[in-house]
Amino acid sequence: MKLVIVRHGESEYNKSNLFSGWEDIALTEKGIEEAKEAGRRIRQTEIQFTAGFTSVLKRSIKSMQYILDEIGQEWLPVDKTWRLNERSYGALQRLNKAETADKRGHELVNRWRKSYDALPPMLETDDPRHPCHDHRYAHVDPRLLPGGESLKTTLDRVLPCWSDQIAPHLMSGENVLVVSHRNTLRALVKYLENISDEAIIKVDIPTGIPVVYEFDEKMGIVSKQELSAAFDPQSNAEVSAN
Amino acid sequence: MKLVIVRHGESEYNKSNLFSGWEDIALTEKGIEEAKEAGRRIRQTEIQFTAGFTSVLKRSIKSMQYILDEIGQEWLPVDKTWRLNERSYGALQRLNKAETADKRGHELVNRWRKSYDALPPMLETDDPRHPCHDHRYAHVDPRLLPGGESLKTTLDRVLPCWSDQIAPHLMSGENVLVVSHRNTLRALVKYLENISDEAIIKVDIPTGIPVVYEFDEKMGIVSKQELSAAFDPQSNAEVSAN
Repeated sequence: MKLVIVRHGESEYNKSNLFSGWEDIALTEKGIEEAKEAGRRIRQTEIQFTAGFTSVLKRSIKSMQYILDEIGQEWLPVDKTWRLNERSYGALQRLNKAETADKRGHELVNRWRKSYDALPPMLETDDPRHPCHDHRYAHVDPRLLPGGESLKTTLDRVLPCWSDQIAPHLMSGENVLVVSHRNTLRALVKYLENISDEAIIKVDIPTGIPVVYEFDEKMGIVSKQELSAAFDPQSNAEVSAN
Repeated sequence: MKLVIVRHGESEYNKSNLFSGWEDIALTEKGIEEAKEAGRRIRQTEIQFTAGFTSVLKRSIKSMQYILDEIGQEWLPVDKTWRLNERSYGALQRLNKAETADKRGHELVNRWRKSYDALPPMLETDDPRHPCHDHRYAHVDPRLLPGGESLKTTLDRVLPCWSDQIAPHLMSGENVLVVSHRNTLRALVKYLENISDEAIIKVDIPTGIPVVYEFDEKMGIVSKQELSAAFDPQSNAEVSAN
Protein backbone atom coordinates (compact mmCIF):
# COMPACT_ATOMS: atom_id res chain seq x y z
CA MET A 1 0.00 0.00 0.00
CA LYS A 2 1.80 3.02 -1.33
CA LEU A 3 0.75 6.64 -1.39
CA VAL A 4 2.50 8.91 -3.88
CA ILE A 5 2.03 12.65 -3.37
CA VAL A 6 3.08 15.28 -5.91
CA ARG A 7 2.79 19.06 -5.82
CA HIS A 8 1.73 20.51 -9.20
CA GLY A 9 4.39 22.05 -11.45
CA GLU A 10 5.09 25.79 -11.59
CA SER A 11 2.00 27.93 -12.27
CA GLU A 12 1.75 31.37 -13.84
CA TYR A 13 1.23 32.85 -10.37
CA ASN A 14 4.22 30.99 -8.89
CA LYS A 15 6.27 32.54 -11.69
CA SER A 16 4.90 36.06 -11.08
CA ASN A 17 5.13 35.70 -7.25
CA LEU A 18 1.37 36.25 -6.75
CA PHE A 19 -0.82 34.67 -4.07
CA SER A 20 -2.83 31.93 -5.86
CA GLY A 21 -4.99 30.10 -3.32
CA TRP A 22 -8.26 29.07 -4.98
CA GLU A 23 -7.60 31.17 -8.11
CA ASP A 24 -7.59 28.80 -11.10
CA ILE A 25 -4.17 29.46 -12.63
CA ALA A 26 -2.59 27.57 -15.55
CA LEU A 27 0.76 25.77 -15.50
CA THR A 28 3.73 27.47 -17.16
CA GLU A 29 5.75 25.61 -19.81
CA LYS A 30 8.27 24.87 -17.04
CA GLY A 31 5.41 23.58 -14.86
CA ILE A 32 4.29 21.21 -17.63
CA GLU A 33 7.86 19.89 -17.91
CA GLU A 34 8.05 19.43 -14.12
CA ALA A 35 4.83 17.40 -14.17
CA LYS A 36 6.10 15.19 -17.01
CA GLU A 37 9.41 14.67 -15.18
CA ALA A 38 7.49 13.69 -12.02
CA GLY A 39 5.63 11.17 -14.18
CA ARG A 40 8.86 9.69 -15.55
CA ARG A 41 10.20 9.24 -12.01
CA ILE A 42 7.00 7.56 -10.85
CA ARG A 43 7.14 5.31 -13.94
CA GLN A 44 10.51 3.99 -12.76
CA THR A 45 8.93 2.75 -9.52
CA GLU A 46 6.54 0.59 -11.60
CA ILE A 47 3.76 1.31 -9.09
CA GLN A 48 0.29 0.35 -10.37
CA PHE A 49 -2.33 2.70 -8.97
CA THR A 50 -5.98 2.01 -8.24
CA ALA A 51 -7.15 5.56 -7.62
CA GLY A 52 -6.03 9.15 -8.08
CA PHE A 53 -7.11 12.30 -6.24
CA THR A 54 -6.59 15.92 -7.17
CA SER A 55 -8.16 19.34 -6.64
CA VAL A 56 -10.65 21.19 -8.84
CA LEU A 57 -7.87 23.63 -9.88
CA LYS A 58 -6.35 23.10 -13.31
CA ARG A 59 -2.69 23.41 -12.28
CA SER A 60 -3.16 20.18 -10.30
CA ILE A 61 -5.62 18.55 -12.70
CA LYS A 62 -3.28 19.05 -15.68
CA SER A 63 -0.25 17.90 -13.64
CA MET A 64 -2.16 14.72 -12.81
CA GLN A 65 -2.96 14.20 -16.51
CA TYR A 66 0.66 14.69 -17.60
CA ILE A 67 1.78 12.20 -14.95
CA LEU A 68 -0.83 9.61 -16.00
CA ASP A 69 0.22 10.02 -19.65
CA GLU A 70 3.86 9.36 -18.69
CA ILE A 71 3.05 6.25 -16.62
CA GLY A 72 0.57 4.89 -19.19
CA GLN A 73 -2.31 4.87 -16.68
CA GLU A 74 -4.58 7.44 -18.36
CA TRP A 75 -7.52 5.22 -17.42
CA LEU A 76 -6.96 5.72 -13.66
CA PRO A 77 -10.16 6.88 -11.90
CA VAL A 78 -9.38 10.39 -10.70
CA ASP A 79 -11.50 12.16 -8.12
CA LYS A 80 -11.34 15.95 -8.49
CA THR A 81 -12.33 17.39 -5.13
CA TRP A 82 -12.41 20.90 -3.64
CA ARG A 83 -11.08 19.33 -0.42
CA LEU A 84 -7.66 19.03 -2.11
CA ASN A 85 -7.65 22.66 -3.31
CA GLU A 86 -4.78 24.90 -2.26
CA ARG A 87 -5.21 26.77 1.02
CA SER A 88 -7.46 29.78 0.35
CA TYR A 89 -5.43 32.97 0.66
CA GLY A 90 -8.64 35.02 0.96
CA ALA A 91 -8.34 38.68 0.03
CA LEU A 92 -4.59 38.24 -0.62
CA GLN A 93 -5.35 36.26 -3.78
CA ARG A 94 -4.04 37.88 -6.99
CA LEU A 95 -1.77 40.21 -4.96
CA ASN A 96 2.01 40.23 -5.36
CA LYS A 97 3.75 38.62 -2.38
CA ALA A 98 6.67 41.09 -2.28
CA GLU A 99 4.49 44.17 -2.76
CA THR A 100 2.10 42.97 -0.05
CA ALA A 101 5.04 42.51 2.33
CA ASP A 102 6.28 46.04 1.55
CA LYS A 103 2.83 47.50 2.13
CA ARG A 104 1.56 45.44 5.09
CA GLY A 105 4.90 44.63 6.74
CA HIS A 106 7.15 41.60 6.27
CA GLU A 107 6.45 40.20 9.71
CA LEU A 108 2.67 40.17 9.24
CA VAL A 109 2.85 38.70 5.73
CA ASN A 110 5.31 36.11 6.94
CA ARG A 111 2.90 35.14 9.70
CA TRP A 112 0.07 34.83 7.18
CA ARG A 113 2.25 32.66 4.97
CA LYS A 114 4.09 30.47 7.43
CA SER A 115 2.35 30.17 10.80
CA TYR A 116 0.03 27.26 11.46
CA ASP A 117 -3.08 29.10 12.55
CA ALA A 118 -2.97 32.67 11.18
CA LEU A 119 -5.90 33.46 8.91
CA PRO A 120 -5.37 35.80 5.95
CA PRO A 121 -7.70 38.80 5.37
CA MET A 122 -10.98 37.10 4.44
CA LEU A 123 -13.03 37.35 1.23
CA GLU A 124 -16.61 38.46 1.86
CA THR A 125 -19.33 36.45 0.10
CA ASP A 126 -20.19 39.47 -2.09
CA ASP A 127 -16.63 39.53 -3.45
CA PRO A 128 -16.66 37.94 -6.94
CA ARG A 129 -13.51 36.01 -5.95
CA HIS A 130 -15.44 34.16 -3.23
CA PRO A 131 -15.95 30.51 -4.27
CA CYS A 132 -19.72 30.70 -3.68
CA HIS A 133 -19.92 32.46 -7.10
CA ASP A 134 -18.17 29.63 -8.94
CA HIS A 135 -20.23 26.94 -10.72
CA ARG A 136 -17.71 24.22 -9.79
CA TYR A 137 -18.70 24.54 -6.11
CA ALA A 138 -22.45 24.53 -6.79
CA HIS A 139 -22.83 21.13 -5.09
CA VAL A 140 -20.84 22.05 -1.96
CA ASP A 141 -22.66 23.25 1.17
CA PRO A 142 -21.96 27.02 0.98
CA ARG A 143 -21.16 27.08 4.71
CA LEU A 144 -18.10 24.92 3.94
CA LEU A 145 -16.71 27.26 1.27
CA PRO A 146 -13.92 29.33 2.86
CA GLY A 147 -13.31 33.05 2.45
CA GLY A 148 -9.75 32.41 3.65
CA GLU A 149 -7.91 29.64 5.47
CA SER A 150 -5.03 29.05 7.87
CA LEU A 151 -2.93 25.91 7.47
CA LYS A 152 -4.94 24.55 10.40
CA THR A 153 -8.37 25.09 8.81
CA THR A 154 -6.95 23.74 5.54
CA LEU A 155 -6.06 20.53 7.37
CA ASP A 156 -9.57 20.41 8.85
CA ARG A 157 -11.17 20.28 5.40
CA VAL A 158 -8.51 17.97 3.86
CA LEU A 159 -8.91 15.32 6.57
CA PRO A 160 -12.39 14.03 5.53
CA CYS A 161 -10.97 13.39 2.05
CA TRP A 162 -8.03 11.53 3.60
CA SER A 163 -10.04 9.42 6.02
CA ASP A 164 -13.13 8.73 3.89
CA GLN A 165 -11.69 8.56 0.38
CA ILE A 166 -7.91 8.05 0.24
CA ALA A 167 -7.11 5.93 3.32
CA PRO A 168 -9.74 3.22 2.57
CA HIS A 169 -7.92 2.43 -0.71
CA LEU A 170 -4.59 2.12 1.11
CA MET A 171 -6.16 -0.03 3.83
CA SER A 172 -7.42 -2.36 1.07
CA GLY A 173 -3.80 -2.84 -0.05
CA GLU A 174 -4.08 -0.52 -3.04
CA ASN A 175 -1.76 2.26 -4.28
CA VAL A 176 -2.98 5.84 -4.50
CA LEU A 177 -1.69 8.91 -6.37
CA VAL A 178 -2.44 12.39 -4.98
CA VAL A 179 -1.59 15.52 -6.99
CA SER A 180 -2.27 18.64 -5.02
CA HIS A 181 -0.88 21.96 -3.78
CA ARG A 182 1.92 23.24 -1.53
CA ASN A 183 -0.11 23.98 1.59
CA THR A 184 -2.65 21.20 1.11
CA LEU A 185 0.23 18.72 1.03
CA ARG A 186 1.99 20.45 3.96
CA ALA A 187 -1.22 19.99 5.95
CA LEU A 188 -1.53 16.34 4.93
CA VAL A 189 2.15 15.63 5.65
CA LYS A 190 1.80 17.29 9.08
CA TYR A 191 -1.00 14.87 9.88
CA LEU A 192 0.65 11.77 8.39
CA GLU A 193 4.04 12.36 10.04
CA ASN A 194 2.61 13.83 13.24
CA ILE A 195 4.65 17.04 12.87
CA SER A 196 4.17 19.71 15.55
CA ASP A 197 2.53 23.11 14.92
CA GLU A 198 5.96 24.74 15.31
CA ALA A 199 7.97 22.29 13.19
CA ILE A 200 5.56 22.43 10.21
CA ILE A 201 6.53 26.09 9.66
CA LYS A 202 9.87 24.92 8.22
CA VAL A 203 8.48 22.06 6.11
CA ASP A 204 8.07 22.84 2.41
CA ILE A 205 6.98 20.76 -0.59
CA PRO A 206 8.90 21.48 -3.82
CA THR A 207 7.05 21.45 -7.16
CA GLY A 208 7.15 18.22 -9.13
CA ILE A 209 9.13 15.97 -6.72
CA PRO A 210 7.04 12.86 -5.99
CA VAL A 211 7.19 11.46 -2.45
CA VAL A 212 6.37 7.78 -1.90
CA TYR A 213 4.97 6.71 1.48
CA GLU A 214 4.63 3.04 2.29
CA PHE A 215 2.18 2.07 5.04
CA ASP A 216 1.63 -0.99 7.20
CA GLU A 217 -1.83 -2.48 7.89
CA LYS A 218 -2.44 -0.03 10.74
CA MET A 219 -1.56 2.93 8.52
CA GLY A 220 1.81 3.41 10.20
CA ILE A 221 4.49 4.79 7.86
CA VAL A 222 7.00 2.07 6.96
CA SER A 223 9.11 4.21 4.64
CA LYS A 224 9.22 7.57 2.89
CA GLN A 225 11.18 8.15 -0.30
CA GLU A 226 11.61 11.34 -2.29
CA LEU A 227 11.93 10.71 -6.03
CA SER A 228 14.37 13.58 -6.48
CA ALA A 229 16.82 14.04 -9.36
CA ALA A 230 19.32 11.77 -7.57
CA PHE A 231 16.68 9.02 -7.25
CA ASP A 232 18.03 5.64 -8.33
CA PRO A 233 15.26 3.10 -8.94
CA GLN A 234 17.81 0.25 -8.60
CA SER A 235 18.69 1.26 -5.06
CA ASN A 236 16.59 0.10 -2.12
CA ALA A 237 17.96 2.85 0.13
CA GLU A 238 15.06 4.81 1.49
CA VAL A 239 14.77 7.92 3.59
CA SER A 240 13.22 6.79 6.86
CA ALA A 241 10.07 8.55 8.00
CA ASN A 242 9.96 11.07 10.87
CA MET B 1 -31.17 19.16 -19.49
CA LYS B 2 -28.75 18.70 -22.34
CA LEU B 3 -26.67 15.71 -23.32
CA VAL B 4 -23.66 16.34 -25.57
CA ILE B 5 -22.09 13.28 -27.18
CA VAL B 6 -18.74 13.34 -29.00
CA ARG B 7 -16.83 10.56 -30.74
CA HIS B 8 -13.08 10.77 -30.03
CA GLY B 9 -10.78 12.24 -32.68
CA GLU B 10 -8.85 10.13 -35.21
CA SER B 11 -6.69 7.42 -33.60
CA GLU B 12 -3.54 5.75 -34.91
CA TYR B 13 -5.62 2.68 -35.79
CA ASN B 14 -8.29 4.75 -37.60
CA LYS B 15 -5.45 6.17 -39.67
CA SER B 16 -3.95 2.75 -40.42
CA ASN B 17 -7.36 1.14 -41.04
CA LEU B 18 -6.92 -1.44 -38.26
CA PHE B 19 -9.66 -2.88 -36.03
CA SER B 20 -9.26 -1.13 -32.63
CA GLY B 21 -12.01 -2.31 -30.28
CA TRP B 22 -10.63 -2.42 -26.73
CA GLU B 23 -7.01 -1.90 -27.87
CA ASP B 24 -5.73 1.27 -26.16
CA ILE B 25 -4.63 3.36 -29.14
CA ALA B 26 -3.41 6.99 -29.02
CA LEU B 27 -4.89 9.90 -30.93
CA THR B 28 -3.08 11.15 -34.03
CA GLU B 29 -2.14 14.83 -34.34
CA LYS B 30 -5.24 15.19 -36.52
CA GLY B 31 -7.29 13.49 -33.81
CA ILE B 32 -6.02 15.96 -31.19
CA GLU B 33 -7.03 18.85 -33.46
CA GLU B 34 -10.47 17.30 -34.00
CA ALA B 35 -10.98 17.06 -30.24
CA LYS B 36 -9.94 20.68 -29.71
CA GLU B 37 -12.25 21.80 -32.52
CA ALA B 38 -15.11 19.86 -30.91
CA GLY B 39 -14.31 21.72 -27.69
CA ARG B 40 -14.42 25.11 -29.44
CA ARG B 41 -17.84 24.29 -30.91
CA ILE B 42 -19.18 23.19 -27.53
CA ARG B 43 -17.77 26.38 -25.98
CA GLN B 44 -19.97 28.42 -28.33
CA THR B 45 -23.09 26.79 -26.88
CA GLU B 46 -22.07 28.07 -23.40
CA ILE B 47 -23.41 24.86 -21.85
CA GLN B 48 -22.27 24.39 -18.24
CA PHE B 49 -21.83 20.70 -17.48
CA THR B 50 -22.23 18.92 -14.18
CA ALA B 51 -20.73 15.56 -15.10
CA GLY B 52 -18.66 13.93 -17.82
CA PHE B 53 -18.43 10.28 -18.84
CA THR B 54 -15.86 8.54 -21.00
CA SER B 55 -14.30 5.12 -21.54
CA VAL B 56 -11.09 3.71 -20.04
CA LEU B 57 -9.39 4.02 -23.45
CA LYS B 58 -7.03 6.93 -23.92
CA ARG B 59 -8.29 8.07 -27.32
CA SER B 60 -11.56 9.01 -25.60
CA ILE B 61 -10.00 10.11 -22.28
CA LYS B 62 -7.60 12.50 -24.03
CA SER B 63 -10.37 13.80 -26.32
CA MET B 64 -12.43 14.57 -23.19
CA GLN B 65 -9.46 16.40 -21.66
CA TYR B 66 -8.84 18.51 -24.79
CA ILE B 67 -12.54 19.43 -24.88
CA LEU B 68 -12.59 20.38 -21.18
CA ASP B 69 -9.46 22.53 -21.69
CA GLU B 70 -11.18 24.36 -24.55
CA ILE B 71 -14.39 25.00 -22.61
CA GLY B 72 -12.54 25.96 -19.39
CA GLN B 73 -14.23 23.20 -17.38
CA GLU B 74 -11.13 21.15 -16.53
CA TRP B 75 -12.61 20.65 -13.04
CA LEU B 76 -15.61 18.67 -14.38
CA PRO B 77 -15.99 15.32 -12.57
CA VAL B 78 -15.31 12.69 -15.23
CA ASP B 79 -16.21 9.06 -14.77
CA LYS B 80 -13.99 6.75 -16.82
CA THR B 81 -15.91 3.53 -17.28
CA TRP B 82 -15.34 0.31 -19.26
CA ARG B 83 -19.07 0.43 -20.07
CA LEU B 84 -18.33 3.27 -22.53
CA ASN B 85 -15.45 1.40 -24.22
CA GLU B 86 -15.63 0.83 -27.96
CA ARG B 87 -17.36 -2.37 -29.10
CA SER B 88 -14.87 -5.22 -28.63
CA TYR B 89 -13.79 -6.51 -32.04
CA GLY B 90 -12.48 -9.71 -30.43
CA ALA B 91 -9.86 -11.61 -32.43
CA LEU B 92 -10.14 -9.04 -35.26
CA GLN B 93 -8.38 -6.42 -33.08
CA ARG B 94 -5.03 -5.22 -34.51
CA LEU B 95 -5.89 -6.70 -37.94
CA ASN B 96 -6.15 -4.54 -41.07
CA LYS B 97 -9.74 -4.10 -42.21
CA ALA B 98 -9.00 -4.30 -45.94
CA GLU B 99 -6.66 -7.30 -45.60
CA THR B 100 -9.20 -9.10 -43.42
CA ALA B 101 -11.90 -8.46 -46.04
CA ASP B 102 -9.61 -9.83 -48.77
CA LYS B 103 -8.82 -12.92 -46.71
CA ARG B 104 -12.18 -13.69 -45.08
CA GLY B 105 -14.50 -12.27 -47.73
CA HIS B 106 -16.01 -8.80 -47.99
CA GLU B 107 -19.53 -9.98 -47.20
CA LEU B 108 -18.55 -11.68 -43.94
CA VAL B 109 -16.40 -8.75 -42.78
CA ASN B 110 -19.15 -6.34 -43.71
CA ARG B 111 -21.60 -8.35 -41.63
CA TRP B 112 -19.17 -8.31 -38.67
CA ARG B 113 -18.79 -4.57 -39.03
CA LYS B 114 -22.28 -3.38 -39.86
CA SER B 115 -24.99 -5.81 -38.77
CA TYR B 116 -26.69 -5.36 -35.44
CA ASP B 117 -26.17 -8.80 -33.96
CA ALA B 118 -23.19 -10.47 -35.66
CA LEU B 119 -20.42 -11.39 -33.22
CA PRO B 120 -16.79 -11.16 -34.40
CA PRO B 121 -14.40 -14.11 -33.88
CA MET B 122 -13.98 -14.19 -30.10
CA LEU B 123 -10.83 -13.74 -28.01
CA GLU B 124 -10.21 -16.67 -25.66
CA THR B 125 -9.36 -15.81 -22.06
CA ASP B 126 -5.82 -17.20 -22.53
CA ASP B 127 -5.22 -14.68 -25.33
CA PRO B 128 -3.09 -11.81 -23.93
CA ARG B 129 -5.40 -9.37 -25.73
CA HIS B 130 -8.36 -10.53 -23.60
CA PRO B 131 -9.28 -7.76 -21.12
CA CYS B 132 -9.09 -10.13 -18.15
CA HIS B 133 -5.29 -9.67 -18.32
CA ASP B 134 -5.45 -5.88 -18.05
CA HIS B 135 -5.05 -4.20 -14.64
CA ARG B 136 -7.62 -1.51 -15.50
CA TYR B 137 -10.39 -4.15 -15.43
CA ALA B 138 -9.24 -5.73 -12.16
CA HIS B 139 -12.37 -4.47 -10.36
CA VAL B 140 -14.84 -5.68 -13.00
CA ASP B 141 -16.56 -9.07 -12.60
CA PRO B 142 -14.55 -11.18 -15.11
CA ARG B 143 -17.79 -12.73 -16.42
CA LEU B 144 -18.73 -9.28 -17.75
CA LEU B 145 -15.50 -8.79 -19.71
CA PRO B 146 -16.21 -9.57 -23.37
CA GLY B 147 -14.03 -11.60 -25.73
CA GLY B 148 -15.92 -9.91 -28.58
CA GLU B 149 -19.20 -8.02 -29.01
CA SER B 150 -21.96 -7.36 -31.52
CA LEU B 151 -23.58 -3.94 -31.59
CA LYS B 152 -26.45 -5.57 -29.67
CA THR B 153 -24.29 -6.89 -26.82
CA THR B 154 -22.45 -3.53 -26.78
CA LEU B 155 -25.79 -1.82 -26.17
CA ASP B 156 -26.54 -4.34 -23.39
CA ARG B 157 -23.46 -3.26 -21.42
CA VAL B 158 -23.78 0.46 -22.24
CA LEU B 159 -27.37 0.66 -20.96
CA PRO B 160 -26.62 0.29 -17.21
CA CYS B 161 -24.23 3.26 -17.50
CA TRP B 162 -26.95 5.25 -19.26
CA SER B 163 -29.77 4.40 -16.86
CA ASP B 164 -27.83 4.37 -13.57
CA GLN B 165 -25.19 7.05 -14.12
CA ILE B 166 -25.94 9.42 -17.03
CA ALA B 167 -29.75 9.70 -17.11
CA PRO B 168 -30.10 10.57 -13.38
CA HIS B 169 -28.05 13.74 -13.98
CA LEU B 170 -30.26 14.74 -16.90
CA MET B 171 -33.41 13.99 -14.90
CA SER B 172 -32.08 16.37 -12.22
CA GLY B 173 -31.98 19.13 -14.82
CA GLU B 174 -28.20 18.96 -15.31
CA ASN B 175 -26.12 18.89 -18.49
CA VAL B 176 -23.86 15.92 -19.26
CA LEU B 177 -20.92 15.46 -21.64
CA VAL B 178 -20.17 11.97 -23.01
CA VAL B 179 -17.00 11.31 -25.03
CA SER B 180 -16.93 7.81 -26.39
CA HIS B 181 -16.48 5.64 -29.47
CA ARG B 182 -18.15 5.05 -32.85
CA ASN B 183 -20.07 1.89 -32.04
CA THR B 184 -20.71 2.71 -28.39
CA LEU B 185 -22.36 5.94 -29.51
CA ARG B 186 -24.21 4.17 -32.36
CA ALA B 187 -25.63 1.79 -29.74
CA LEU B 188 -26.62 4.65 -27.44
CA VAL B 189 -28.16 6.66 -30.28
CA LYS B 190 -30.12 3.57 -31.39
CA TYR B 191 -31.60 3.38 -27.91
CA LEU B 192 -32.22 7.12 -27.48
CA GLU B 193 -33.82 7.61 -30.90
CA ASN B 194 -35.53 4.22 -30.96
CA ILE B 195 -33.89 3.27 -34.29
CA SER B 196 -34.69 -0.19 -35.70
CA ASP B 197 -32.14 -3.01 -35.95
CA GLU B 198 -32.17 -2.57 -39.74
CA ALA B 199 -31.96 1.23 -39.84
CA ILE B 200 -29.03 1.42 -37.39
CA ILE B 201 -26.81 -0.29 -40.00
CA LYS B 202 -26.72 2.96 -41.98
CA VAL B 203 -26.19 5.32 -39.00
CA ASP B 204 -22.60 6.47 -38.46
CA ILE B 205 -21.00 8.87 -36.00
CA PRO B 206 -18.21 11.05 -37.46
CA THR B 207 -15.12 11.83 -35.33
CA GLY B 208 -15.16 15.08 -33.41
CA ILE B 209 -18.65 16.42 -34.33
CA PRO B 210 -20.55 17.09 -31.09
CA VAL B 211 -24.27 16.29 -31.05
CA VAL B 212 -26.50 18.10 -28.55
CA TYR B 213 -29.69 16.37 -27.38
CA GLU B 214 -32.21 18.28 -25.31
CA PHE B 215 -34.66 16.26 -23.21
CA ASP B 216 -37.96 16.97 -21.52
CA GLU B 217 -38.75 15.82 -17.96
CA LYS B 218 -39.81 12.37 -19.15
CA MET B 219 -36.56 11.94 -21.07
CA GLY B 220 -38.24 12.48 -24.41
CA ILE B 221 -35.99 14.14 -27.01
CA VAL B 222 -37.02 17.76 -27.58
CA SER B 223 -34.28 18.60 -30.07
CA LYS B 224 -31.10 17.26 -31.62
CA GLN B 225 -28.42 19.53 -33.05
CA GLU B 226 -25.16 18.58 -34.75
CA LEU B 227 -22.38 21.10 -34.09
CA SER B 228 -20.91 20.62 -37.55
CA ALA B 229 -18.63 23.05 -39.39
CA ALA B 230 -21.68 24.96 -40.60
CA PHE B 231 -22.96 25.31 -37.04
CA ASP B 232 -23.97 28.90 -36.25
CA PRO B 233 -24.30 29.55 -32.51
CA GLN B 234 -26.39 32.67 -33.23
CA SER B 235 -29.03 30.65 -35.03
CA ASN B 236 -31.76 28.87 -33.12
CA ALA B 237 -32.49 26.56 -36.02
CA GLU B 238 -32.21 22.99 -34.83
CA VAL B 239 -32.31 19.65 -36.56
CA SER B 240 -35.41 17.95 -35.24
CA ALA B 241 -35.00 14.53 -33.71
CA ASN B 242 -36.07 11.32 -35.44
